[in-house]
Amino acid sequence: MDNKYKILSTIKSPKDLKNLSEQDITSLCAEIREKLIEIVSVNGGHLAPNLGVVELTVMLHKCFDAPKDSIVWDVGHQSYVHKMLTGRYDQIDTIRTKDGLAGFPKRSESIYDDFNAGHSSTSISAAYGIARAKLLKNDTSHTVAVIGDGSFTGGLAYEGLNNAGRFKKNFIVVLNDNKMSISYNVGAMAANLSHLRVKPSYIRIKRRTEIVLSHIPLIGGVFKKVLRRSKSKIKNLIYKNTLFDSLGYTYLGPVNGHDIVELESAMTAAKKYNGPVLLHVVTKKGKGYEHAENHPKEFHGIGKFDIDSGEPLSSSKGFSYEFGKCLCNLASKDKNICAITAAMTLGTGLSEFSKKYKNRFFDVGIAEEHAVTFACGLATKGLIPFFAVYSTFLQRAYDQLIHDAAAQNLHVVICVDRAGIVGDDGETHQGIFDVSMLNTIPNTTIFSPCYFDGLKSSLNAATYMCDGLVAVRYPRGGELYRPKDITKLSMDYDVYGEDCDIALVTYGRLFSYACKAKERLAKEGINIKIVKLCKIKPINKKAVEEAAKSKNIFFFEESLVAGGIGESFGYELKKISKDYFYKIHGIKDTFVPHQTVGQAFAGLLLDDDGMIKIIKDYI
Amino acid sequence: MDNKYKILSTIKSPKDLKNLSEQDITSLCAEIREKLIEIVSVNGGHLAPNLGVVELTVMLHKCFDAPKDSIVWDVGHQSYVHKMLTGRYDQIDTIRTKDGLAGFPKRSESIYDDFNAGHSSTSISAAYGIARAKLLKNDTSHTVAVIGDGSFTGGLAYEGLNNAGRFKKNFIVVLNDNKMSISYNVGAMAANLSHLRVKPSYIRIKRRTEIVLSHIPLIGGVFKKVLRRSKSKIKNLIYKNTLFDSLGYTYLGPVNGHDIVELESAMTAAKKYNGPVLLHVVTKKGKGYEHAENHPKEFHGIGKFDIDSGEPLSSSKGFSYEFGKCLCNLASKDKNICAITAAMTLGTGLSEFSKKYKNRFFDVGIAEEHAVTFACGLATKGLIPFFAVYSTFLQRAYDQLIHDAAAQNLHVVICVDRAGIVGDDGETHQGIFDVSMLNTIPNTTIFSPCYFDGLKSSLNAATYMCDGLVAVRYPRGGELYRPKDITKLSMDYDVYGEDCDIALVTYGRLFSYACKAKERLAKEGINIKIVKLCKIKPINKKAVEEAAKSKNIFFFEESLVAGGIGESFGYELKKISKDYFYKIHGIKDTFVPHQTVGQAFAGLLLDDDGMIKIIKDYI
Repeated sequence: MDNKYKILSTIKSPKDLKNLSEQDITSLCAEIREKLIEIVSVNGGHLAPNLGVVELTVMLHKCFDAPKDSIVWDVGHQSYVHKMLTGRYDQIDTIRTKDGLAGFPKRSESIYDDFNAGHSSTSISAAYGIARAKLLKNDTSHTVAVIGDGSFTGGLAYEGLNNAGRFKKNFIVVLNDNKMSISYNVGAMAANLSHLRVKPSYIRIKRRTEIVLSHIPLIGGVFKKVLRRSKSKIKNLIYKNTLFDSLGYTYLGPVNGHDIVELESAMTAAKKYNGPVLLHVVTKKGKGYEHAENHPKEFHGIGKFDIDSGEPLSSSKGFSYEFGKCLCNLASKDKNICAITAAMTLGTGLSEFSKKYKNRFFDVGIAEEHAVTFACGLATKGLIPFFAVYSTFLQRAYDQLIHDAAAQNLHVVICVDRAGIVGDDGETHQGIFDVSMLNTIPNTTIFSPCYFDGLKSSLNAATYMCDGLVAVRYPRGGELYRPKDITKLSMDYDVYGEDCDIALVTYGRLFSYACKAKERLAKEGINIKIVKLCKIKPINKKAVEEAAKSKNIFFFEESLVAGGIGESFGYELKKISKDYFYKIHGIKDTFVPHQTVGQAFAGLLLDDDGMIKIIKDYI
Repeated sequence: MDNKYKILSTIKSPKDLKNLSEQDITSLCAEIREKLIEIVSVNGGHLAPNLGVVELTVMLHKCFDAPKDSIVWDVGHQSYVHKMLTGRYDQIDTIRTKDGLAGFPKRSESIYDDFNAGHSSTSISAAYGIARAKLLKNDTSHTVAVIGDGSFTGGLAYEGLNNAGRFKKNFIVVLNDNKMSISYNVGAMAANLSHLRVKPSYIRIKRRTEIVLSHIPLIGGVFKKVLRRSKSKIKNLIYKNTLFDSLGYTYLGPVNGHDIVELESAMTAAKKYNGPVLLHVVTKKGKGYEHAENHPKEFHGIGKFDIDSGEPLSSSKGFSYEFGKCLCNLASKDKNICAITAAMTLGTGLSEFSKKYKNRFFDVGIAEEHAVTFACGLATKGLIPFFAVYSTFLQRAYDQLIHDAAAQNLHVVICVDRAGIVGDDGETHQGIFDVSMLNTIPNTTIFSPCYFDGLKSSLNAATYMCDGLVAVRYPRGGELYRPKDITKLSMDYDVYGEDCDIALVTYGRLFSYACKAKERLAKEGINIKIVKLCKIKPINKKAVEEAAKSKNIFFFEESLVAGGIGESFGYELKKISKDYFYKIHGIKDTFVPHQTVGQAFAGLLLDDDGMIKIIKDYI
């Protein structure tokens, strides 16, 4: 037994929760909070969301029987508590580190993780699939989706909600309403929830009435029965008009998500319905840690920090910040420039823009599809919309990029943040698909700068020197190594080194590693020439000609090889060159698990060590 | 003036509608219906949706001032009437033919087309973008989105609805409720609309009351004023509890969409609000043409047909039908097999399955994202879901394919119908992205058979010989040319012809053209060898070796070159071959406009003529 975590350390599975007293559970929740703060302060991670769901998670595991009953976590960044309670407390210190626990649910990690997540709004669809499969297999266990109000702005959540709304069996959607998505969501649903929040809770009224009635001997029992029978009538009277009722759900709530008695009562009620239930639970993001309660956005996802002061231990201003600065600068001179975010104002560096150019700033909620189509609407009227979005989330707008932006050849700029390896958030967050995704789209230009000045000139080119769909992609974090002699950068391509036998072609931040590799190889008497691409689509033929001067050409990319720029470049090379060696080295048909960015680069042989190894293996 | 279309032929722009009498408009609507039936019977197209919106479109153009006011059509298959009224009546006979009018709105075609469409659920987002741009430019004109109840099942519609729900300016969403999406949509929203439909119409009550009151001289006028003032109170009383009110919209309706007086009254009312309005219009799909009214699904999109009998003039059973048959066969032997459609039961050939295996059949509405994630939920419980979907619509589920299916390595089969060129539906419907889209996804297998027997063995392999995500793709329509000596097909790859200087590599139905080209070239003394791929990912190394035996290798694909199989194949070739010529011929970074499939193949040089030309140009 652990001295600090007396109860928590004894919980080996949800079974161990079943007989805990109210007092014990309260203590357990306090221990969990302390542990959460402790691990996230060291490993980084999603602190505020987990602090908000401590009681909710404990009571879900107390009231339901996982893994028989299925619990599907939306996004899954709030699953740390769930992991601690489902046999992984001993490993929780390894969370988000190489070979340790993932920061999101993972089926390969535990039978208690019913569905992997990472992206938002998938839980209702997944849970409904699970529930329908159970019905086919005559399995009468419960299925619960736990989804935040932020995720509720995503269309997929609605598609699932709509489709499951006519299901005739028990199916529970727990709406974890923490009154805030990652950024404040500017949607009607948010207003609707805030309206519901102030309504008297049916559960609360019912429970209190029952308590009062129980104290009247004999008559109380009879009254209770009558009350139970009429419960649907009472409920209908008070709640018939919620949006969720319109969509076929029995609405229960709002419930105080930090009151374990109220949660138990509501969950017990929710289990009894024959049809879909929406249980509205109100929680406080960051609950129990002052700094996180006061700055829930900053503590949504955070790096290492000091527990006492709440200050992050490293605070380098990276590409997101530089992007925001550049865009403010462009907007100050051009009234047509607008910025759009899908609930990521802070993460994408748009905070300053959002304050300075309020009228031209649009936070559309976690709704990437809408963000792109909305941008296209703006563009038809001559505005120049910049949609700043993480690479991995842009995947959700693939059709809108094709159908609404490219096919109409509208001038829309996609600012692809977190392009490439992101590190500890792991496989659902790596930005390794955007290149091949955008590469296939006609009428598209893609820039992949390596340094801040390259970002600036790319954004400028995207605004004033391009038509149609333009993407500017840049990595998480800041600049890497830059040799002193590299000053002026072309927004097209640059060549470093004399013509020689070996050419190394690359783009984005891998150029930093390529420079290191070049310097190290030079010391061993091996000369290489670097062709650095900034505009990666369309590929400049002259850049191909530069590479073709060498007999051995190595193409490195921080992206999937299949459908990537390396293959397109290779085909261009073949057109003009005959006798040469060509090797593409990137990410081969696989997902990249959580670890630090440096560990990932090393493992993928994409840093200078890797590049040197690959080149030497051949020569 | 046209004798048959006396009024219609005089409408050169919406201005010409302004002074038409009720009587004239009624006659105009009848003429439009006749014209619609006439052209679609010859050109094919979306008949039932257009017949349903005749009065709605006429009245929109009478009550609003396009192009100053913006009208955004969702999907846009119902825009034929709009085209006739906006200066394109003279060209309407060319609709959906090469170089003629498109079957969907197109900004390049007319200033009255505010936003291109083709895919569903984009209109609210686009219109909201337009409305916000107008606000920034101090343009006070109206913006209207017209969207069907089918499109309302798509998550993007909800994302737009949610985001626009807090807009403080006039913004009108016309819900064209024809009580049916393409297939009957099994969602809660559909149930909710059917509930609303039977409510007394506020507009109707208000108008009738006003008429009655107007007949009482003097007092009537005063009463009318009082009535107007209290209108929001009355409305609130009756309608406060619609789902749309919850989302911030003023709900108006339901309105009879074939009653021009009621429509005018409702539209006039809708224009006056300061905030978003949802105008609920009930229409009958196929209205005015008996066959279409009775069979709205069959007449949704149809080929040429006989006007009197309503019978289609050609009724070849193609790949979709064969797919449905194969899947029924598999399902008869295996209880784990399920089928999913996104509102395309008929189009994807699943009608029989939907009847025979009701419990295992899921129509999820126009919700491709949900379809994939839902399928993944089923798969976690050991079922084998088959999601049948048109190639172009699969684009909307790109992230779900990566994040929910491939990353969890769940066994989900995607049946990609309409893969490749689809013809007259044009650029928004061509299935030319699925290959490069799927090619980038790890843990994925792709089959692209050419004939029905190949489809059958691919489906069998997808079911029992593959793990993870599998796609089986097949074209619209039926089998093309098949040489008699081609009997047994491998589901991997096949080689036809002896080793020689020229190898032609291809997959899917292009193989038919390749065979023709081979035969024709042989007559001229030019021998070619064909390497026919069926499994296109992962590429079989032996197929590459077969191609590498030739010095000149031509790769033909009915897909975009960028990110396609040709580039991946080319990279594999480079690894094992040195001195050779390699040419990929596919679709080069462009969209393919509407025309017949044959015309498209000819224009793209992808038929036997084209293949011969490309090969001869080189040798």
